[in-house]
Amino acid sequence: MSEEVKEVKIETSGKVIQSPCGPIIHGLEDVLVKTTTISDIDGKNGILWYRGYRIDELAKYSTFEEVAYLILYGKLPNRKELEDFKALLASYRDLPSEVYSVVTTLGKVKAHPMLVLEAGVAALGAFDENPNDYSKEANLRRAIKLTSALPIMMAAHYRASRGLDLVKPRKDLSHAANFLYMMFGKEPDETSTKAIDLYLVLHIDHEVPASTFATLVAISTWTDLYSAIAAGIATLKGPLHGGANEAAMKQYLEIGKPESARPYVEKLLAEGKRLMGVGHRVYKAYDPRARIYKELVKQLSEAKGDMTWYRIAEEVEKVVLEKLAPKKLYPNIDFWSGIAMYLLGIPYEYYTPIFAMSRVVGWSAHAIEYLDQHRLFRPRACYTGPHDVPYIPIDKR
Amino acid sequence: MSEEVKEVKIETSGKVIQSPCGPIIHGLEDVLVKTTTISDIDGKNGILWYRGYRIDELAKYSTFEEVAYLILYGKLPNRKELEDFKALLASYRDLPSEVYSVVTTLGKVKAHPMLVLEAGVAALGAFDENPNDYSKEANLRRAIKLTSALPIMMAAHYRASRGLDLVKPRKDLSHAANFLYMMFGKEPDETSTKAIDLYLVLHIDHEVPASTFATLVAISTWTDLYSAIAAGIATLKGPLHGGANEAAMKQYLEIGKPESARPYVEKLLAEGKRLMGVGHRVYKAYDPRARIYKELVKQLSEAKGDMTWYRIAEEVEKVVLEKLAPKKLYPNIDFWSGIAMYLLGIPYEYYTPIFAMSRVVGWSAHAIEYLDQHRLFRPRACYTGPHDVPYIPIDKR
Ligand SMILES: CC(C)(COP(=O)(O)OP(=O)(O)OC[C@H]1O[C@@H](n2cnc3c(N)ncnc32)[C@H](O)[C@@H]1OP(=O)(O)O)[C@@H](O)C(=O)NCCC(=O)NCCS
Ligand SMILES: CC(C)(COP(=O)(O)OP(=O)(O)OC[C@H]1O[C@@H](n2cnc3c(N)ncnc32)[C@H](O)[C@@H]1OP(=O)(O)O)[C@@H](O)C(=O)NCCC(=O)NCCS
Repeated sequence: MSEEVKEVKIETSGKVIQSPCGPIIHGLEDVLVKTTTISDIDGKNGILWYRGYRIDELAKYSTFEEVAYLILYGKLPNRKELEDFKALLASYRDLPSEVYSVVTTLGKVKAHPMLVLEAGVAALGAFDENPNDYSKEANLRRAIKLTSALPIMMAAHYRASRGLDLVKPRKDLSHAANFLYMMFGKEPDETSTKAIDLYLVLHIDHEVPASTFATLVAISTWTDLYSAIAAGIATLKGPLHGGANEAAMKQYLEIGKPESARPYVEKLLAEGKRLMGVGHRVYKAYDPRARIYKELVKQLSEAKGDMTWYRIAEEVEKVVLEKLAPKKLYPNIDFWSGIAMYLLGIPYEYYTPIFAMSRVVGWSAHAIEYLDQHRLFRPRACYTGPHDVPYIPIDKR
Repeated sequence: MSEEVKEVKIETSGKVIQSPCGPIIHGLEDVLVKTTTISDIDGKNGILWYRGYRIDELAKYSTFEEVAYLILYGKLPNRKELEDFKALLASYRDLPSEVYSVVTTLGKVKAHPMLVLEAGVAALGAFDENPNDYSKEANLRRAIKLTSALPIMMAAHYRASRGLDLVKPRKDLSHAANFLYMMFGKEPDETSTKAIDLYLVLHIDHEVPASTFATLVAISTWTDLYSAIAAGIATLKGPLHGGANEAAMKQYLEIGKPESARPYVEKLLAEGKRLMGVGHRVYKAYDPRARIYKELVKQLSEAKGDMTWYRIAEEVEKVVLEKLAPKKLYPNIDFWSGIAMYLLGIPYEYYTPIFAMSRVVGWSAHAIEYLDQHRLFRPRACYTGPHDVPYIPIDKR
């Protein structure tokens, strides 16, 4: 612990607040907190890579299971590795009865499923075989367990909240298909499964947004991975982050028909409000995930014979490109993804949990990576109040 | 969103990693993330203020309830305000039965109580009367609710995990006394109540350690306060943070007798291991909370007629002051606090939860304060891997 004070030069395009203690880079924009080999974003050109692969290629050729393996192990699996990985994921599809009980108890009172995931993940932590094992292997095992668990919890919550019987997981189905199967009790068609699978592929990691950062701050105290993931879920819940997909879809429903899109958006912007599903701290271009998923939403809308929401979003997009793009605000993934969820018959409150169901892989990978370059996150606040105020006895106040 | 890149000069005495993308201030040491009027630390001289009052004065004259009011409302209450505040706290001592159910279900399988607090707080979030009310008033009400709830959850967990019947809260007891009453089923003596009360006063806020920072990162997405507090609890759990009190006491138990302290510590340090309860990112002097609580531990040890642990800690302290103080590593609050908990008959795993039971006030105050100077926390990571790796079909891998 050196006492020597150094001056470090940080480049940021963000807002800087001058405080009496020195500059505050608001929201830590552009501040580096770690190195990574997991994912990279080129915000200016709208490019995203996972482990060096462009997401466009992965979206075209890959599946959630394969990309999850890539994120966790740093390379694409060969056939045997992929089969083993799938088997491992499937083997964790049975949750301890107490975890089910927590989830269904809260499902019955219609708790927001993100709160339930926080609770469920913490509950699952109680069943870790060896909580004192901080090794990479143990954490990878936990990551896979958590990845299997989230969709099970969500489906259980959905069914309990609707008074429906739980559906037992099927080990022969893919991650995406099993999720839909457990939600709705029947094997999903290929188009629906693809919509979920691609959603999962596109959400699996995104460098260090707020939720991943919360996970890192948590793990930096050497807390357990379950707790660190619970912190990630708690953070993702916010409407400025994962909550935006739900919020965006609600906007389209309020708009109701394509012709109403323009006046709606213009009014909202005139009132200084935020359009949900638009803007990003890092992308100053069209979000590449949004570009890919927009195409899927179009196809899904055609397959389901309901183009309304896609058309409304297209109209909103026109206004965004006209009025907000000059301010470097473009549609992000949440702009489009809610529509697919809606067409699949998934209630709004599950949109963000499905985001979590994928991002749990990225959170875990970042936590594991950070443990190898570990240091406790402990920033400072600038105190601007008085000092040494005298204590006055209560009856003289 | 300006595109202009500015160079900001940050002063840090921390470790700086040079990455290809620029400097990384490891663990964000000395990096300012907000302004605050809640608490201030003078790390060089070992002084801590809450809302401008020295903790020494508050420790001497005040109580948890009074200090909680101070932290939340920014001023010491007059008699009427204090009575109203106490009544409000007491009024929230009954939890919804589903929250009890979550806590006791996990208690029965002996889940770590920090995991249970994470789950319990998320569960409590499901019962918020108006989740869409982001106002300061609503968040203050939630903060008070959470402050009441944490000790209830812990006591319920303790009793369920031991197969004991739950004890109903008593509204006539102080926060500290009611907690001990619900844990052990009998009204505590004054010395024991004082030990808890002072512990709570000394832990209520500490500027922005990792757990408070995780709460801030979470609330910066506009997530709900329950979720943000769950993130704080998840982060506090780590042994480098709140978990250190439990770890420190375990060290003393391993040491067993005062004569064994020196060789134990010397061996541990020779092996390059960390002594728990020692060191702090901000204090480069004796932790003022530790100084105050050491005195209480001494008195409590005398009252309970068991000086062993105090004496062992004193011996450990001698070695610390000799070998580690030159490196600016001193005993922190966790060095002493575990002994008091031990003497009160509180099992180890509840030491950190009792920390949380106090810090929930500080977390809430910081979250509420940040919403007034809000910006999403979204730092960056420096990507050091390859780009545009070609996708190879699975059978060619
Ligand atoms: C994601 C988001 C929080 C990132 O923004 P940020 O980097 O923190 O930037 P700021 O909040 O400081 O916003 C910068 C400016 O753009 C404006 N802006 C940002 N997003 C906007 C939106 N969706 N609609 C309208 N204006 C927006 C802000 O009002 C601000 O204007 P100002 O500088 O005149 O005050 C922000 O774009 C947002 O709130 N988007 C909507 C929620 C969303 O879709 N989130 C999902 C992201 S994947
Ligand atoms: C609290 C703590 C994480 C803060 O440390 P930090 O600011 O992150 O500093 P670092 O972890 O980088 O440690 C700095 C140096 O001091 C040493 N050090 C720090 N705490 C130490 C301890 N408790 N015992 C022995 N050495 C310690 C480190 O090994 C490191 O040495 P190095 O520079 O030669 O590698 C650290 O002091 C610690 O782990 N303490 C024990 C846990 C504890 O009591 N936590 C409660 C805090 S209230």
